[in-house]
Amino acid sequence: MRIAIDAMGGDHAPKSAVAGAIQAVKEYGVEVYLVGIKEEIHKHMSEEDKSNEKITIIEASETITNDDVPVAAIKQKKDSSMVVGLKQVKEGSCDAFLSAGSTGAFLAGSLLKVGRIKGIDRPALSPLIPTTKGLCMIIDAGANLDSKPKNLQQFAIMGSIYMEKVMGIHNPRVGLLNVGTEEGKGNELTKQSFELLSQLNINFVGNIEARDVAEGICDVCVCDGFAGNVLLKTTEGVAQVIIDLLKDIFMKNAVTKIAALMLKDGLKTFKKKFDYKEVGGAPFMGIDGIMIKAHGSSDEKAIKNAVRQAKLLYDNKCLDIIRQEISNAEVDTGEFTE
Amino acid sequence: MRIAIDAMGGDHAPKSAVAGAIQAVKEYGVEVYLVGIKEEIHKHMSEEDKSNEKITIIEASETITNDDVPVAAIKQKKDSSMVVGLKQVKEGSCDAFLSAGSTGAFLAGSLLKVGRIKGIDRPALSPLIPTTKGLCMIIDAGANLDSKPKNLQQFAIMGSIYMEKVMGIHNPRVGLLNVGTEEGKGNELTKQSFELLSQLNINFVGNIEARDVAEGICDVCVCDGFAGNVLLKTTEGVAQVIIDLLKDIFMKNAVTKIAALMLKDGLKTFKKKFDYKEVGGAPFMGIDGIMIKAHGSSDEKAIKNAVRQAKLLYDNKCLDIIRQEISNAEVDTGEFTE
Repeated sequence: MRIAIDAMGGDHAPKSAVAGAIQAVKEYGVEVYLVGIKEEIHKHMSEEDKSNEKITIIEASETITNDDVPVAAIKQKKDSSMVVGLKQVKEGSCDAFLSAGSTGAFLAGSLLKVGRIKGIDRPALSPLIPTTKGLCMIIDAGANLDSKPKNLQQFAIMGSIYMEKVMGIHNPRVGLLNVGTEEGKGNELTKQSFELLSQLNINFVGNIEARDVAEGICDVCVCDGFAGNVLLKTTEGVAQVIIDLLKDIFMKNAVTKIAALMLKDGLKTFKKKFDYKEVGGAPFMGIDGIMIKAHGSSDEKAIKNAVRQAKLLYDNKCLDIIRQEISNAEVDTGEFTE
Repeated sequence: MRIAIDAMGGDHAPKSAVAGAIQAVKEYGVEVYLVGIKEEIHKHMSEEDKSNEKITIIEASETITNDDVPVAAIKQKKDSSMVVGLKQVKEGSCDAFLSAGSTGAFLAGSLLKVGRIKGIDRPALSPLIPTTKGLCMIIDAGANLDSKPKNLQQFAIMGSIYMEKVMGIHNPRVGLLNVGTEEGKGNELTKQSFELLSQLNINFVGNIEARDVAEGICDVCVCDGFAGNVLLKTTEGVAQVIIDLLKDIFMKNAVTKIAALMLKDGLKTFKKKFDYKEVGGAPFMGIDGIMIKAHGSSDEKAIKNAVRQAKLLYDNKCLDIIRQEISNAEVDTGEFTE
């Protein structure tokens, strides 16, 4: 498998991207194509790495930052690592693209330069969040802010396939994010989506409440991008605040510091549970190519795990399965909105 | 001040409602009207309480439960504690109504039996959630699931008044829940609402992200009811999961139990921060009467604090201020949707 990696994207670029890529070559045997400024990339490679046949550098002179306006940046910065990387997938030179750069630009670029899977109306940003029973995919977490029922139906299909094929969950439980669990609850979107999800050949567990997501009530949480964004960011924010408060409690004085040491093992397990680096990245489901958005603050390990995700998507032919299932679902795709 | 209290609503009714009401009479000098089945209520009153002139029982033979369909229950159970309690406010015999019963029935009943403040199109369920910098009002948290920009404008006015007058926050910071902080971000609703909120005579701090709510980025978080419900319930769910995980860590063995004892003071403060009992209840803002929804699992203390909230709303003439500000804002109220 050949994967293009945006060497210039993310808070610790190019160091983390390069180191993670090299690690992934060693662990998974993939071929990596590091896209960016060659001399910057070379700084983080050993002589051995430079002569490794599985590591190639693709020159790109520009960089898109979080301050750039996404669509404009994709159109104007034609020689950016983001655009050049996306082109590799479009042209078939690579099988996947990975970036820790601007989410907005990555999404806009994926749509403009690679395009959607035939039959998919809207791609979705699909991060995985930790729950007490494993990871849960939030689909969509913000790619679309005014979704239609058929979009949610497609999200359900794609999320179910991902969790089954990539995460190895048999018959993943797909829930519809709503304000209550009873059928008939919700806004116009969720009421209509409930009907459409019920018709699918997936393990639809019905409406779920945001309260129960962290408990692990489902493996796939289907929602419109606005609600999914709120769910994702509230989860991050609340966890961070509690962890900060705990740190204060532990660091208060000599006695509490000793107590923290006594709890060390448990706290380590706890921390690992909420560690995004273990998760890897958020796939853009519905793009006609494997796209993985790694967290902006990704370190080497996070990048390596994101490559692993891309490889699982590739090895399990997930995009082919999605194409097949979308055509089976006979979802009305007459209304294109690009 | 005269407050009607639904003695039959909530998980611990009538015990908590009665005990909390009696406590509130002693602490705040309010007159309470306990609505429900007299002999059930009497079981939790001393002889002294029974002869207390500030405690009156209003007989109501029926009870609305969480299993009842809200609107149907309000229409059919005419002699329920909920309906009889609401009537006290409508008829002017009481200045406020408090219930720990079904949220849906309370909201439906408030609308049907008491009605809205003139000029308010949609009332909002407005709970207060703990943040690192004090409490934040989420308005709306689920009363309306398909809101319009003018609804959000009215929520902003009401939330600002509440936090200023009831919570004593000078010039409360009002944020608009969105997927990013930049102006122009969001879905159609938030884009249009941003404009309307900017025109108000409040301390509008612009778009805020769900991630920053727990950090205390604003005192009032304006949102449509669906997003607010997701925010509220995710906060509850994530906090609960983390607290459960910590309990497991602390209770693992003898060493960890000792460590927990060493951290006792800090953990107590921490627990208090996330204790809904300290908060009281969630007001229904926009109803033409003071309505406080207490948490279903409210104990005596929570009920007492909810009475205190009602009293502050009353003493500070919040409804009059809202009437004035709504007419000042000249919000278009042509489109009634009841």
